[in-house]
Amino acid sequence: MFKINENYLKLPGSYLFSRIAGKVNAFQKENPEKSIIRLGIGDVTQPLAPAIISSLHAAVDEMADAKTFRGYAPDLGYEFLRNAIAKNDYAGRGCEIAADEIFVSDGAKCDSGNIQEIFSTDNKIAVCDPVYPVYVDTNVMAGRTGTYDPSAETWSDVIYMPCTDANDFAPELPGETPDIIYLCFPNNPTGSAITKAQLQEWVDYANKVGAVIIYDAAYEAYISEADVPHSIYECAGARTCAIELRSFSKNAGFTGVRLGFTVVPKDLKCGDISLHALWARRHGTKYNGAPYMIQRAGEAVYSPEGKEQLKKQVAYYMNNANVIYEGLKSAGYSVSGGVNAPYIWLKTPGSMTSWEFFDFLLERAGVVGTPGSGFGPSGEGYFRLTAFGSYENTVAAIKRIKTL
Amino acid sequence: MFKINENYLKLPGSYLFSRIAGKVNAFQKENPEKSIIRLGIGDVTQPLAPAIISSLHAAVDEMADAKTFRGYAPDLGYEFLRNAIAKNDYAGRGCEIAADEIFVSDGAKCDSGNIQEIFSTDNKIAVCDPVYPVYVDTNVMAGRTGTYDPSAETWSDVIYMPCTDANDFAPELPGETPDIIYLCFPNNPTGSAITKAQLQEWVDYANKVGAVIIYDAAYEAYISEADVPHSIYECAGARTCAIELRSFSKNAGFTGVRLGFTVVPKDLKCGDISLHALWARRHGTKYNGAPYMIQRAGEAVYSPEGKEQLKKQVAYYMNNANVIYEGLKSAGYSVSGGVNAPYIWLKTPGSMTSWEFFDFLLERAGVVGTPGSGFGPSGEGYFRLTAFGSYENTVAAIKRIKTL
Repeated sequence: MFKINENYLKLPGSYLFSRIAGKVNAFQKENPEKSIIRLGIGDVTQPLAPAIISSLHAAVDEMADAKTFRGYAPDLGYEFLRNAIAKNDYAGRGCEIAADEIFVSDGAKCDSGNIQEIFSTDNKIAVCDPVYPVYVDTNVMAGRTGTYDPSAETWSDVIYMPCTDANDFAPELPGETPDIIYLCFPNNPTGSAITKAQLQEWVDYANKVGAVIIYDAAYEAYISEADVPHSIYECAGARTCAIELRSFSKNAGFTGVRLGFTVVPKDLKCGDISLHALWARRHGTKYNGAPYMIQRAGEAVYSPEGKEQLKKQVAYYMNNANVIYEGLKSAGYSVSGGVNAPYIWLKTPGSMTSWEFFDFLLERAGVVGTPGSGFGPSGEGYFRLTAFGSYENTVAAIKRIKTL
Repeated sequence: MFKINENYLKLPGSYLFSRIAGKVNAFQKENPEKSIIRLGIGDVTQPLAPAIISSLHAAVDEMADAKTFRGYAPDLGYEFLRNAIAKNDYAGRGCEIAADEIFVSDGAKCDSGNIQEIFSTDNKIAVCDPVYPVYVDTNVMAGRTGTYDPSAETWSDVIYMPCTDANDFAPELPGETPDIIYLCFPNNPTGSAITKAQLQEWVDYANKVGAVIIYDAAYEAYISEADVPHSIYECAGARTCAIELRSFSKNAGFTGVRLGFTVVPKDLKCGDISLHALWARRHGTKYNGAPYMIQRAGEAVYSPEGKEQLKKQVAYYMNNANVIYEGLKSAGYSVSGGVNAPYIWLKTPGSMTSWEFFDFLLERAGVVGTPGSGFGPSGEGYFRLTAFGSYENTVAAIKRIKTL
């Protein structure tokens, strides 16, 4: 008789956003007349930029003609896209990353879930707390996290690095030495960023103790301050300790288009074994590339028109972030984030838990946000709002919150 | 110090198609004047059908307008696509499969590589020999296959079911009881099919011994004979023992478009645990859906125009299959396949090994095929040609082979 992967059964409850959707649907059913504004899930609302639309139409037309039709894509992704990434995201920022160190994928969620496969199940992971749930959940599925303590909401074999207002939402080097360190900056969910000097400390630490940093830079397009690094490869020594995950979801509105990439430098090794070779083998064996049309859309992100149009799109969302930040502040909330990230992180008022505040906001204001405790125990007492709504909805939501 | 997944190091050599590409590139470099016809990798060459092109353009336009823009897709895939699949591929063939038992994905390669994750690493797999390399390789990566014997080219913990001309390329029930059985019909690489009565024996066997069948039906659109099943759910009892993998790559030319789906019936259980729930959890945690535009393209496959146009496309390739089959036969080769599948499987002449015949064909005729031994030890002495080239190239290739 076949047996299942028992690790799956250890996963507590349902995925955070499924639970939110359930609560919102139930509320709407009971209150069909109430208008609900969703500033919960980090999904974009603005249409694709014209340069991207043009490139998609052109690529579709290529697929209609045998002379320009494209079948299976090259294993790492099309060179036109990898070259554009290497030039714009890396060479342009003084980072030494070659086009053949870039693996094009269908998004950072898949990559951040799959990357753990190339490591031993004995390895110990360290994560920020609060944290994007995918990092921990995929390690649970692989059997790397030990046992779950439901009262503490923590796993026995995971090193948690609390990020709260006490440390200005920047994790401290852990007391116990990890093998794999997940870092995400600008951060989801707290919206905080760290400086290049702070990130350099992490790179130096990882090189010293022999750890790998999985660096999720999905929100780099929202950075507005000069001393905040856009890539971990801006730090000296990162080529021997860091893998970087990038996404087109937030800088170009590709949440429904699906495109991302992972950088694995060839200098990153475990003894003689190159992690680049392992990831290439995984990519070649279990994946068949992002669609040709979508890779062309990714290329358009780096065209002069694309860049110009997307700068405005990011500015639109960052204006929303400012509306939320200033509005909540003037209403007396304790707020952070929103300067280098599209997320605003606020302290729940009084002694409300995150889920109590979720219900309060939904029932009293018809506004949906994300409970901080859904991202980990140190998120308790916090709440996330996103800047990805429309301007009109964002203004309306803040107005409603202010009248509470 | 972090450690890697040592199972990756057990994988012998490089992926079959990478090795072929390397050999072809080297030959072309040394012989830049020679024309090469590729009938090796199973990649399509005909452009997307007009109905699909129209639906892609329309979906791109929807993404250009905030009112019709789509962000993150529903976890299982859009309902419009899952409903079309349930109606056409299942209800239309008398199979009882609900739309919420269908998981839309970016292709059967990913699904056939990922599906093993929901099973215990203690489970023993059975595969046909020869076989599509992804089934075994992904189980190697997961540590499920024991040790490799380089002389026999087999893994100690894998049950091999030889498919040769001795058994008309149909596997026999294994002597040792497996937990997971991979079956692919119409078969890649042999091009053979099995009857509904033969498949029913497998379903009955799996239910009897408590095994799961992973049924890869990627080539079902090429079935021409009436007693060959298009889905394993045509067999009684398959809902309690079978997962089916399907692809749009070969029936609609989506190798560069990327779309597929997996069916996990809710009746398929290990004790109380539903495999549907496990796969849903994996899908929701590690995957973010196929692009909206591509799911609309998939919907167009089932439109009246789409069906009509794709019937012609499949007929075009099957005409190529016939050209290859008849041509090789008249040249004295021993040939099979090509009737219910776009693959032709031939015996190498004399005592040539598969790779010797590969080199011979490349150097003497400029034709690229796939060595049978690349698919497993029982593929030694065989060779695969695909019908996915253009008609002109296919005719030219056979002409060249005939003059050898």
